[in-house]
Amino acid sequence: MFESKNPQRTPISELGEFGLIDQLTKNTKINNANTALGIGDDAALVDQGTHYTAISTDLLVEGVHFDLSYVPLKHLGYKSVMVNLSDIYAMNGTAEHITVGIAVSNRFPVEALEEIYEGIHLACERYGVDLIGGDTTASKSGLLISITAVGRVEKDAAARRSGAQDNDLVVVSGDIGGAYMGLQILEREKQVYLENPEMQPELNGHEYILERQLKPEARKDIVELLKGLEVRPTSMIDISDGLSSEVLHLAKSSNMQFNIYENKIPIDPSIYSLCEEFNLNTTTVALSGGEDYELMFTIPISEHDKIKGNPNLTIIGYVKEGSGANLITRDEKVIELKAQGFKHHE
Amino acid sequence: MFESKNPQRTPISELGEFGLIDQLTKNTKINNANTALGIGDDAALVDQGTHYTAISTDLLVEGVHFDLSYVPLKHLGYKSVMVNLSDIYAMNGTAEHITVGIAVSNRFPVEALEEIYEGIHLACERYGVDLIGGDTTASKSGLLISITAVGRVEKDAAARRSGAQDNDLVVVSGDIGGAYMGLQILEREKQVYLENPEMQPELNGHEYILERQLKPEARKDIVELLKGLEVRPTSMIDISDGLSSEVLHLAKSSNMQFNIYENKIPIDPSIYSLCEEFNLNTTTVALSGGEDYELMFTIPISEHDKIKGNPNLTIIGYVKEGSGANLITRDEKVIELKAQGFKHHE
Repeated sequence: MFESKNPQRTPISELGEFGLIDQLTKNTKINNANTALGIGDDAALVDQGTHYTAISTDLLVEGVHFDLSYVPLKHLGYKSVMVNLSDIYAMNGTAEHITVGIAVSNRFPVEALEEIYEGIHLACERYGVDLIGGDTTASKSGLLISITAVGRVEKDAAARRSGAQDNDLVVVSGDIGGAYMGLQILEREKQVYLENPEMQPELNGHEYILERQLKPEARKDIVELLKGLEVRPTSMIDISDGLSSEVLHLAKSSNMQFNIYENKIPIDPSIYSLCEEFNLNTTTVALSGGEDYELMFTIPISEHDKIKGNPNLTIIGYVKEGSGANLITRDEKVIELKAQGFKHHE
Repeated sequence: MFESKNPQRTPISELGEFGLIDQLTKNTKINNANTALGIGDDAALVDQGTHYTAISTDLLVEGVHFDLSYVPLKHLGYKSVMVNLSDIYAMNGTAEHITVGIAVSNRFPVEALEEIYEGIHLACERYGVDLIGGDTTASKSGLLISITAVGRVEKDAAARRSGAQDNDLVVVSGDIGGAYMGLQILEREKQVYLENPEMQPELNGHEYILERQLKPEARKDIVELLKGLEVRPTSMIDISDGLSSEVLHLAKSSNMQFNIYENKIPIDPSIYSLCEEFNLNTTTVALSGGEDYELMFTIPISEHDKIKGNPNLTIIGYVKEGSGANLITRDEKVIELKAQGFKHHE
């Protein structure tokens, strides 16, 4: 009835996720003096005088971010909260509040929503977060969850993506690649099930990686650990899209070069044999897999002794003047890292 | 593959929107001392020490809240922001920030998203609001916009739904019912167009109500007006679902009875003849139509002189001890008001 006057039709896929976001938000103006940090980090920061409020929004879409043929609804609710809290922790802050928007088709009964909310409530309780609002609406098809997480960041603790300095160490929490391998197992068993619905899924022995995929935990504990150790990261990001993409974000925002040692990337032992079975390279899985929701950050080399030997933290590389990011392979070759990860969200 | 253990299947429609929200959020616990107001108002309030931060989330779903056969994308972007800012103004606050989540299928080119963002940027600029974050993701079908609005509310100005007092006056801004009649015109012209795509839509003469539907303005000016007049509303809500539903929200939250005079409800003159044409009752349209995004609030009767004669404000009734809400008709009958408005969001 009203046709668009613009005859151009550029497919979204042509720009990629980050290119698209850049394109759409390039005209963004800042009007308020209290906007301390806008688009382009894990969360925005609003200056409240004595402290910052961190704010971040993420959408989870059925068929894009989750597949209800193997994701239990309660886990989905829990994970939706984790994905969002992770962005607040990535600012070195404390998550305090969430709002939840759910769009749902009439394929779902009330009980399905109750299961999702069970997971949301459980996540809130465990992480000390209050559910303070939201919206529930019909959709034409499928399920979509939109969560906004809000938290508090002390002004002298805020860790932006942009603060990495020459000679800083690059550190990650936990281990990487598990969530992606959990997804591979679930996808494989789904195929088996589709071919023969009588077959029971073979999930035994994969508990760790399945939990990494289905029920990740945001690293609130790492923020508390760093506070206890009196370590203030110079930059920080959460690992949602894979190590490679996140390293490049830090490098670009900080205007520095990141160098990562392949043999330092922390990978759970169970993943090696599984990667062999799936004919995958473990390093590729860690670099491009995503959804681990670990934290990656940089610290001045002078802080090395404070984190040395901590079982939760692994030093994987260093920062130097320059741009881009390199992988230093096991045989000491230097390979330029490229971004991956259109699939997942910031 | 994983079946739900819960065999019950209650259709969502059985509970209705507000019943569903009550059901899902009844187990919500508050963990943080700074949560000043949680679920159940236009926005939540977080105590920042010197002031409150108001936070509200609303979803707009294609095929549920908007029909792209007659909603231009730029208007959609603009309206999405208005719907959310309106919730902050309904707390008697100043909207300062938004995050925008968009889920979009590959049916839409980049240029479509650019048009939506044009509307978002325009709204931000006009209302002094900063776009500080968000998420853009694929969807399996259709378009969904999720906006979270964040604002500042002075502690001594915050207007909750729950504060109405015995003898207060009930006041609305602007006029009511226009957005709904705009929708009727658009739906009618859509039918004409579907039957004969050669026909041009007959929209002339309906500019006011079409603008009310397609490009509503949130009443930031009313919040400023009240501040200038030194009037602090005892309770406030925005009119998104229709007057009837909103009056009942205030009555229930305040634990008071609301009495509305039919002949005081402000209705634009153009709506009378149009209602006749559509065989609709103007009062029904005002009570149940929705999407006007005007503000309704209560003030102590002692403040009457401050607002008397103001062309932006109309006194439509009064509050007294009791419960529920009544319409006092033109012929002085008293009719109990019932809720409507599952269609739209809070």
